[in-house]
Amino acid sequence: MALTVEKTSSGREYKVKDMSLADFGRLELELAEVEMPGLMSCRTEFGPSQPFKGARITGSLHMTIQTAVLIETLTALGAEVRWCSCNIFSTQDHAAAAIARDSAAVFAWKGETLQEYWWCTERALDWGPGGGPDLIVDDGGDATLLIHEGVKAEEEFEKTGKVPDPTSTDNPEFQIVLSIIKEGLQVDPKKYHKMKDRLVGVSEETTTGVKRLYQMQANGTLLFPAINVNDSVTKSKFDNLYGCRHSLPDGLMRATDVMIAGKVAVVCGYGDVGKGCAAAMKQAGARVIVTEIDPICALQATMEGLQVRTLEDVVSEADIFVTTTGNKDIIMVSDMRKMKNNAIVCNIGHFDNEIDMLGLETYPGVKRITIKPQTDRWVFPETNTGIIILAEGRLMNLGCATGHPSFVMSCSFTNQVIAQLELWKEKSSGKYGKEVYVLPKHLDEKVAALHLEKLGAKLTKLSKDQADYISVPVEGPYKPAHYRY
Amino acid sequence: MALTVEKTSSGREYKVKDMSLADFGRLELELAEVEMPGLMSCRTEFGPSQPFKGARITGSLHMTIQTAVLIETLTALGAEVRWCSCNIFSTQDHAAAAIARDSAAVFAWKGETLQEYWWCTERALDWGPGGGPDLIVDDGGDATLLIHEGVKAEEEFEKTGKVPDPTSTDNPEFQIVLSIIKEGLQVDPKKYHKMKDRLVGVSEETTTGVKRLYQMQANGTLLFPAINVNDSVTKSKFDNLYGCRHSLPDGLMRATDVMIAGKVAVVCGYGDVGKGCAAAMKQAGARVIVTEIDPICALQATMEGLQVRTLEDVVSEADIFVTTTGNKDIIMVSDMRKMKNNAIVCNIGHFDNEIDMLGLETYPGVKRITIKPQTDRWVFPETNTGIIILAEGRLMNLGCATGHPSFVMSCSFTNQVIAQLELWKEKSSGKYGKEVYVLPKHLDEKVAALHLEKLGAKLTKLSKDQADYISVPVEGPYKPAHYRY
Amino acid sequence: MALTVEKTSSGREYKVKDMSLADFGRLELELAEVEMPGLMSCRTEFGPSQPFKGARITGSLHMTIQTAVLIETLTALGAEVRWCSCNIFSTQDHAAAAIARDSAAVFAWKGETLQEYWWCTERALDWGPGGGPDLIVDDGGDATLLIHEGVKAEEEFEKTGKVPDPTSTDNPEFQIVLSIIKEGLQVDPKKYHKMKDRLVGVSEETTTGVKRLYQMQANGTLLFPAINVNDSVTKSKFDNLYGCRHSLPDGLMRATDVMIAGKVAVVCGYGDVGKGCAAAMKQAGARVIVTEIDPICALQATMEGLQVRTLEDVVSEADIFVTTTGNKDIIMVSDMRKMKNNAIVCNIGHFDNEIDMLGLETYPGVKRITIKPQTDRWVFPETNTGIIILAEGRLMNLGCATGHPSFVMSCSFTNQVIAQLELWKEKSSGKYGKEVYVLPKHLDEKVAALHLEKLGAKLTKLSKDQADYISVPVEGPYKPAHYRY
Amino acid sequence: MALTVEKTSSGREYKVKDMSLADFGRLELELAEVEMPGLMSCRTEFGPSQPFKGARITGSLHMTIQTAVLIETLTALGAEVRWCSCNIFSTQDHAAAAIARDSAAVFAWKGETLQEYWWCTERALDWGPGGGPDLIVDDGGDATLLIHEGVKAEEEFEKTGKVPDPTSTDNPEFQIVLSIIKEGLQVDPKKYHKMKDRLVGVSEETTTGVKRLYQMQANGTLLFPAINVNDSVTKSKFDNLYGCRHSLPDGLMRATDVMIAGKVAVVCGYGDVGKGCAAAMKQAGARVIVTEIDPICALQATMEGLQVRTLEDVVSEADIFVTTTGNKDIIMVSDMRKMKNNAIVCNIGHFDNEIDMLGLETYPGVKRITIKPQTDRWVFPETNTGIIILAEGRLMNLGCATGHPSFVMSCSFTNQVIAQLELWKEKSSGKYGKEVYVLPKHLDEKVAALHLEKLGAKLTKLSKDQADYISVPVEGPYKPAHYRY
Repeated sequence: MALTVEKTSSGREYKVKDMSLADFGRLELELAEVEMPGLMSCRTEFGPSQPFKGARITGSLHMTIQTAVLIETLTALGAEVRWCSCNIFSTQDHAAAAIARDSAAVFAWKGETLQEYWWCTERALDWGPGGGPDLIVDDGGDATLLIHEGVKAEEEFEKTGKVPDPTSTDNPEFQIVLSIIKEGLQVDPKKYHKMKDRLVGVSEETTTGVKRLYQMQANGTLLFPAINVNDSVTKSKFDNLYGCRHSLPDGLMRATDVMIAGKVAVVCGYGDVGKGCAAAMKQAGARVIVTEIDPICALQATMEGLQVRTLEDVVSEADIFVTTTGNKDIIMVSDMRKMKNNAIVCNIGHFDNEIDMLGLETYPGVKRITIKPQTDRWVFPETNTGIIILAEGRLMNLGCATGHPSFVMSCSFTNQVIAQLELWKEKSSGKYGKEVYVLPKHLDEKVAALHLEKLGAKLTKLSKDQADYISVPVEGPYKPAHYRY
Repeated sequence: MALTVEKTSSGREYKVKDMSLADFGRLELELAEVEMPGLMSCRTEFGPSQPFKGARITGSLHMTIQTAVLIETLTALGAEVRWCSCNIFSTQDHAAAAIARDSAAVFAWKGETLQEYWWCTERALDWGPGGGPDLIVDDGGDATLLIHEGVKAEEEFEKTGKVPDPTSTDNPEFQIVLSIIKEGLQVDPKKYHKMKDRLVGVSEETTTGVKRLYQMQANGTLLFPAINVNDSVTKSKFDNLYGCRHSLPDGLMRATDVMIAGKVAVVCGYGDVGKGCAAAMKQAGARVIVTEIDPICALQATMEGLQVRTLEDVVSEADIFVTTTGNKDIIMVSDMRKMKNNAIVCNIGHFDNEIDMLGLETYPGVKRITIKPQTDRWVFPETNTGIIILAEGRLMNLGCATGHPSFVMSCSFTNQVIAQLELWKEKSSGKYGKEVYVLPKHLDEKVAALHLEKLGAKLTKLSKDQADYISVPVEGPYKPAHYRY
Repeated sequence: MALTVEKTSSGREYKVKDMSLADFGRLELELAEVEMPGLMSCRTEFGPSQPFKGARITGSLHMTIQTAVLIETLTALGAEVRWCSCNIFSTQDHAAAAIARDSAAVFAWKGETLQEYWWCTERALDWGPGGGPDLIVDDGGDATLLIHEGVKAEEEFEKTGKVPDPTSTDNPEFQIVLSIIKEGLQVDPKKYHKMKDRLVGVSEETTTGVKRLYQMQANGTLLFPAINVNDSVTKSKFDNLYGCRHSLPDGLMRATDVMIAGKVAVVCGYGDVGKGCAAAMKQAGARVIVTEIDPICALQATMEGLQVRTLEDVVSEADIFVTTTGNKDIIMVSDMRKMKNNAIVCNIGHFDNEIDMLGLETYPGVKRITIKPQTDRWVFPETNTGIIILAEGRLMNLGCATGHPSFVMSCSFTNQVIAQLELWKEKSSGKYGKEVYVLPKHLDEKVAALHLEKLGAKLTKLSKDQADYISVPVEGPYKPAHYRY
Repeated sequence: MALTVEKTSSGREYKVKDMSLADFGRLELELAEVEMPGLMSCRTEFGPSQPFKGARITGSLHMTIQTAVLIETLTALGAEVRWCSCNIFSTQDHAAAAIARDSAAVFAWKGETLQEYWWCTERALDWGPGGGPDLIVDDGGDATLLIHEGVKAEEEFEKTGKVPDPTSTDNPEFQIVLSIIKEGLQVDPKKYHKMKDRLVGVSEETTTGVKRLYQMQANGTLLFPAINVNDSVTKSKFDNLYGCRHSLPDGLMRATDVMIAGKVAVVCGYGDVGKGCAAAMKQAGARVIVTEIDPICALQATMEGLQVRTLEDVVSEADIFVTTTGNKDIIMVSDMRKMKNNAIVCNIGHFDNEIDMLGLETYPGVKRITIKPQTDRWVFPETNTGIIILAEGRLMNLGCATGHPSFVMSCSFTNQVIAQLELWKEKSSGKYGKEVYVLPKHLDEKVAALHLEKLGAKLTKLSKDQADYISVPVEGPYKPAHYRY
């Protein structure tokens, strides 16, 4: 990669689209701060004691305005930070510029190639000769993956002298990962071991990343402690649900300006993300059809008046298709061919493999017409009708709009700050082993409490007598661990 | 108690309001069967093998039409059944009559006194000289409580010769319990021990009963295995939520005919029951205010556009008050005095102590005007304005309407059948100790699946490849234990 | 008819089900008064001046608690009143008893035969030798019809000596009407002429009655002035819409206890009544399908996310069918035969001929099983499956529940009082000819204003400057006549 | 004005922002065509006969993608077209470029000054020496106003020799109008008379313009026939209601990215636009408070569970303020000073004078910080807190987003095409005088019908018997003129 790292006048590294956007980014950052009471409370509560003094934090998480407020919360608490995005389309360039100029090393821009993406990830992890970061904030697990694959390759190399072979895989993205590791090996055959050795732990943001972590825990291959932030109630039941309820129509509107009312929308998957999406479409006046594999979630959908069908039953009558499953191969090119002209197909769930982008791209004679960035019409040769794909099958709310709004991200990111604080505080105590942990309920409740005042909400206080009656402490936590909210 | 047990021509015992209602009950039972596919599937799947052959089951659970379908499912699977209601107002007399005539021993009628209530409970547990039931289906835990208190008293009596003293407590209901145990002691000082010894286990229906069970488990006083049916997803996220969304407006309408649109409704508590109630009131056109102690639930309420305030802030501006907390002392007589004329106060959560009925009844000079059964206007002497109390503070959906509809109860009760089958099948295997268990997720998913076809829902099937990708079996279960739905 | 008119101790005539229900009726009447601020304001504003002094008012309108408050408002303003119901199932017997005992001559009970129904109508119109009423409050137009048909028959008789021949029509209800007129002719061949001559005018409550009036106006056969109350905004956009949104689920729940969530509901017609019904079903968690003939209303339905289909397309997949059209032959027996077992079929729109009750009743081999009054299961011989018909095809909200709640009826009935006042005040001025009139907009706005305070609503006041800017008076009316709300 | 008109290679005049956007505009235009079935049907039905052959049409209506499809429908039917926007921020530059290049003379760009705006209007009306247009498509009535003011000034000049004096008014925008007319007078003292003489009529799009027309009709000053398109049901009950329901959140999200859920939104006015806005905010999870002057609309709001308060009661607790009134002086600077920090204030109703922009701009010491175009933060010096004003107080959905989506605009614009066709067809018949007309109901129904198929809706057909029963023709129209939908 012939990319050049730039430096600020103070010597901090960065690579962003356009540093002149920093002022605009700063203005939006200031607006966002008002909407992120949880993060601002962390600055007030913890700022004075500088708990992250001496800590190096690497983040791999959508480089948006909201993330910028997270980063500046981490630095306000004493951390040094390097950051990259976890999605090629999700960076907001003005946010990246403001942070690069003012606060942290940033390697991110909207519209990276996959090669650029992994270059940025590698830059964010590279803290120079002394090894990598002390802590990682991860989203989707790519930073964690790179270290794990790196360590694996180094071990193989040490044993057998073999270097990773990018041609050994069909997956083009994994080819890039192997190339990067291979290059690293040639420079320093202990590079990823040094990282692993220094690393105190990772806090992971999202379902997909958490799933990878639990698999590594199950396989015994997890190299360091991990906190599962996704499954904090104040994350998965807020960000995933209410965030998507907000950002799905936002993305649809910005990308296509299409009227949602009167349309038939198919939401594939009825988990937290799917629930938010279905609610949004229903409220906007669409008729919503859900596809599900899980009978419990399917039954929930019916109780909300939604029809539960298979994709093939409805593929030719719907106008909008949204994948939210966290699985792959949800909408195949054979499905797309049967859709109405200008049906909109998008993904808000997981990787771009929820939609069969490869199948579409390689369909004989297919024509791609880019309406505007992240909005493409793909025309099939047989019918001369087309479908509209958003964000090339990647997260459409981040690709076509600005992702989740500040307030709900404040919930998620306050969990991140608390998780990072916990990992750092316990770095030498042995409290956390090479396993996946969730935050205790009282911290989850605290995150919620920090967000109520902004909304004018006022809590009722339990009397001691009432608390005893239901066997909880007056100050909480109020629910058993298995409570579902 | 001078109550007389009656007998059918076949010699089965019963005590119901009016046996001539049996035909009407049977007609409604037949309608309900069509709406309860889970129970009917159990009959089809398990009926031929008669798994409950030889099992005696005592139930203490609202004696409604839906429960009647449950009872006849148990008997269709080979059980002998005795039944009482778990609430003085919740019996549907035609349901009780149909079951008493055709299927099981029933001791229940709408409008029992507290003394009659406990007499019924004791009758339902009394299977004659050979001890009590093999299995209990409990709702709220009163049958379980009676046995535990009975065993405790018998132990005390054996040690010290002391019999329970009803005057030792202020709680009028507990006085009755102690009296019953005292009478039992005089007849057979090992009566409850025999019950305990025979008992294989209990399956508990609701939050309040489950809470008692976990407390006994924590204290080490639980005497037999218990299955927590309440926390099956297909119970608590359906019955509690969608059941109450249906039955709250139903109860309000039947009791008061009041227009809900335009009114201000205060929902105390935003758990599953509160969520259902708030949704129902909002949808009917009321403005909804929520009170909460738990910041997470409070934040959920705000995300749905509901105002979160304390009761005292809004007590004088609201029209309808609903308690859903599972706690006590939620609406006190001092609150009621500040309410608007004809404000409606009701409870759908738990016992009548959510509302300070004692305070109201003993308020100096207060006047009670019964509009119709379960609908009382209480007039305060100072202002000559009144409030309307439904079902004397007890569950208003069962007291003023007919409780939850068949379909959602089919979910709950299919869990009950499965729990009872499990306890009975494992009665000698030692699988279950004196602890509280929840059903495994694949059974929960099965319950949901049994209810989808009736609604015309069609599930998507995972491919093997997809299942591997997300690391679940093709046939489920599809979610980790901590998943919140 | 061998029915006997009874008399109160004060000599007022009545015929009700059970006079002992009067106390209960009075209690509910007192509750209703609190919910009917418009009517109570009329008592306060007009009571002292006794504007109806000397006026005889006959009402033919559902004899419910709400109507009772209307009647006592009319009497509080000085009128003498005789009343009957306009539907065989819609009387609330306790309301009828309270009014009969305390306030007016009532001829109404729940469950009249058609013959009894018309006998009651005739009684309500019969004020003795001096002719009929001065004013009529009509709902559906039956009282108006009887007079018009009576006058027509008397003219024919005078000209030709012919008396009406009940066998000249197939319509069994019209046969009864002709019989009554025939009997009347034999007693007094000028009976209906005398009524017509005395009559100042009618105020008509509902769509169906209004349609008849406009037809008579168009034909030149209208015999006296009529005020169309139905098309006051505060009537048709409130009672029809929000009233039905409340009372459709109420009727369904009381009649069948069926869970609405998850079901497919077909709403035939998407006028004001249909809009209210569709909203209610959607909010309760049903999937709603609308049938419509009018493309504008159909397009409105689509904008709310509702599917618009023909009945035949969906007849075999839906669970609940509601007719709201004001037309006839909407659901035929040939449709009913294709429905799912226990599909619910009901009418909330107009006469029982929206549903092909005649076709059903005369279907060869069909079996009717009455679950409870107004809830019948009809079983087809070929399939042995059945459908459930509510209220014998008549208005299910009045037949199976208690009709619309007090608050919304207060809007409608305040329009009635104002219309009656207007007709009476102008009885000699010649202001009103033999035409159909609507109330002026400032009175419509007044009705609304009278209902706002009860709901805690607070209006903004226009400044003079603002009023001039939009060319309206500061005090209203605020909208042009064609405004649609 | 030193603006230069440019010319295409074919000699057609234009002035747009950037002609290189034409390709992008064309792509979006093609997408919009699929969403505008009414307009495309007009092309199919009327295109072959070229009914507008020889007609010159001037339009003054937001120059968006949707308007572009309207323009090309007019040209497809044979018209020659000149166009300007009716709002300084509402032009979509790519739409303007595509039309300028391919189809019509366009004078419009996003972000005109007021002077530029009126220059554009004047250009669009100037068809050269032979007088002005034959027909006008107007939105808000500015083109109509210019001609009326021009004619008035020319008459005054002819009588008295006086030319308009821009300094005679305080209103800066009217000063510009007078200047333009003054300049015109100096060139041709009969310029506007010639326009008036040629003009066949105008079709007006919106409430504000219609109000002006009715005032002129009332004053006897209307110079030519006008068709009120706004009050077609398929316009005001769709575009105003469902259009705003879509575009209000769209504008809020694009301008501020703020989370709507949990916020308090004040909607000033509850007409069609306000109803759409309130629905959108409620559905997105905000708590909605309505302000109203009209008691009927206020009562409608309460029936939907919305609180009705005055602005002053809630000004300091709300987060989002939206004006929808069509009146002026709704939110004054004295209100803004009391708002929470970063409260959002915007207008979707009418002119920027709904919000006291003048008061804000001239507030001593106030500081304006432009976050991005059309999103300004105004900071008050006393508190150092600020509010966020969207689109400088002008229509925020057009200023901050892309206006209403194509589908709903297709309803509105199909009415426009039909109105223009009607005026043109009857240009010599004398059918239309100098009055304001609405389209007949069967055309309104036709517009709706043209939009149903796209949504998969299927109408039920009346039988002849049914049609007779309700006294309408089988093929419609189905409702009386006063029907409110």
